[in-house]
Amino acid sequence: MKTLNVDLGDRSYPIFIGQDLLNDAALITPYIHGKQVMIVSNETVAPLYFEKIALLFSGFDLQSVILPDGEKFKNLSILNQIYDGLLTHNFDRSCTLVALGGGVVGDMTGYAAASYQRGVNFIQIPTTLLSQVDSSVGGKTGVNHALGKNMIGAFHQPQCVIADTDVLNTLDNRELSAGIAEVVKYGLLGDLAFFDWLKPNMPALMRREPKALAYAIERSCSDKAKIVAADEKESGQRALLNYGHTFAHAIETGMGYGRWLHGEAVAVGMLMAAQMSCKLGFIESQSVNEIQQLLENAGLPIRAPEEMDVAEFLTLMAKDKKSIAGITRLVLLKKMGQAFLCDDYATEVLINILNQHLHAPS
Amino acid sequence: MKTLNVDLGDRSYPIFIGQDLLNDAALITPYIHGKQVMIVSNETVAPLYFEKIALLFSGFDLQSVILPDGEKFKNLSILNQIYDGLLTHNFDRSCTLVALGGGVVGDMTGYAAASYQRGVNFIQIPTTLLSQVDSSVGGKTGVNHALGKNMIGAFHQPQCVIADTDVLNTLDNRELSAGIAEVVKYGLLGDLAFFDWLKPNMPALMRREPKALAYAIERSCSDKAKIVAADEKESGQRALLNYGHTFAHAIETGMGYGRWLHGEAVAVGMLMAAQMSCKLGFIESQSVNEIQQLLENAGLPIRAPEEMDVAEFLTLMAKDKKSIAGITRLVLLKKMGQAFLCDDYATEVLINILNQHLHAPS
Repeated sequence: MKTLNVDLGDRSYPIFIGQDLLNDAALITPYIHGKQVMIVSNETVAPLYFEKIALLFSGFDLQSVILPDGEKFKNLSILNQIYDGLLTHNFDRSCTLVALGGGVVGDMTGYAAASYQRGVNFIQIPTTLLSQVDSSVGGKTGVNHALGKNMIGAFHQPQCVIADTDVLNTLDNRELSAGIAEVVKYGLLGDLAFFDWLKPNMPALMRREPKALAYAIERSCSDKAKIVAADEKESGQRALLNYGHTFAHAIETGMGYGRWLHGEAVAVGMLMAAQMSCKLGFIESQSVNEIQQLLENAGLPIRAPEEMDVAEFLTLMAKDKKSIAGITRLVLLKKMGQAFLCDDYATEVLINILNQHLHAPS
Repeated sequence: MKTLNVDLGDRSYPIFIGQDLLNDAALITPYIHGKQVMIVSNETVAPLYFEKIALLFSGFDLQSVILPDGEKFKNLSILNQIYDGLLTHNFDRSCTLVALGGGVVGDMTGYAAASYQRGVNFIQIPTTLLSQVDSSVGGKTGVNHALGKNMIGAFHQPQCVIADTDVLNTLDNRELSAGIAEVVKYGLLGDLAFFDWLKPNMPALMRREPKALAYAIERSCSDKAKIVAADEKESGQRALLNYGHTFAHAIETGMGYGRWLHGEAVAVGMLMAAQMSCKLGFIESQSVNEIQQLLENAGLPIRAPEEMDVAEFLTLMAKDKKSIAGITRLVLLKKMGQAFLCDDYATEVLINILNQHLHAPS
């Protein structure tokens, strides 16, 4: 087992990464301060892991809330089910919420913890590769609004995160690939050596070899933790973590939450951002090809959905949280392995890239 | 005009207190960082003050959301109207929300600001005495849940607060009295000299003399600011601000939100807490009489609602956010002008006080 410490002063916490971590009550119980524990999971994950996880909390007042599965349920109304559960069981400020599931469960449980009685503790047990590498670091929690993704939320750090590679064996291939998209992101935005490691090791990741997975998780979390530690509230450098995401959010919103997996949209978004970086003269077309090849090897899409048109795409991109005064700031590649925040590009270049994806023959 | 600085490090902010402050754009605009301003108000306050306040923001992209008036609308569903307004008008992270109204508008607007895009700026223009002395200091924001008051929320500090005594002229008498209840609280919990000032000056406050009001607001805010600065997240001393509130919340929840004004419930709660402090031997019965007399002079109720019974009251009190492991901790008076947090009282004493209120002949 590897332990990675996310360094955020008095909000620091460890991420435990490895195999067979979910049988060890001694790993998790030191991070629970009161007696009341609420496991929040969903209808897909709970049948697989709830009983096993419940065993970790003998001796606690254990309750649970099982949510419907899917991004389309990540809203205020379903969030209210968590508050209902907490209040029905008289949970007080010393309680701990445990998020057992993927990114949606993690974001919603984290936000419920951030807002219940103005803030209680929570622990993350991410069960997808995406949530292990992404939502387990950084403290971003929240829900979607009909008019925009992740528009309601808070920064709230967990007490600890347990990333067990064993749980990835029950992931379907599409979910695995979606997680790998975020792994590739860390290589592209700031860690070229990791990107170079990924090229020959992609087959091992696709075969779910525990050592390769653990290394990819650790390296991604470590890369992210460094950025988050330097910029907890996203005033500068942290925005680079959104590499590919402005395009991705437009795809997810445009297609309706849940039809494209987040990581699938991110894969296309990263490619679009690379193509734009190339058009602006920052990177070579050879590098764009390498990125495209790596994404294809990971079983990821490399083209935006044809149902969307350019005008819709631009409108949705303008709603991005990084937008200030109507200008869509984009995270682009200054060079391979180095992202930067760009707001002085010609809109024609962006439209050109969108046209390539949305209207070119398939 | 008096300026009181609430000292919270990089979250410090000023409270401006005085007459005729709402005609001065130069007072408020330095606290607005972007171009987008959303005034949130309610159907009672907006007709009185919206036009006047809107004049302060010429040159900004000004939008508004007008909520229904009342504590019963302080919930997630009505909160969503604020998010709808922000998203419909493409408000970004640099926007500022302006709360124009009483405590409900302030709490909801503050919570919308805390949670929209994980946190944007807000400014408070409290229009009731209660919100001027109470919710303008401390950063507590949130909404109610059907199962408990203020159960969903966040700590989020405003950029500035403008407490104009002129707006109190449109308050009805019941609202004025409810505000005075919180003023009396500051005297009782930690400022005996202020309590002694209040006794001869209550008639001036009831006549709404601007100088007396401004002094009472400033002294209350200053007392509260000292406590909040020492304990921003309510781990210890800040709980003393809840003097009378555990009883009060039981009354408000038991009677249904909005039937009793918060300050009215606090008045009875403070008296019950004083009676309990007397029964436990901390203060003299003469002091209890003084408190009761001051509350009566302020036109406040001094008896709990007869519709409630002891069992219901105890159950509701146990849901209080200060409760840990089922024990209802109470803020009581160690002596006049000095509150403390007590959890080792005999439940019989509490029941005895409840019986006095709920079953004694009126």
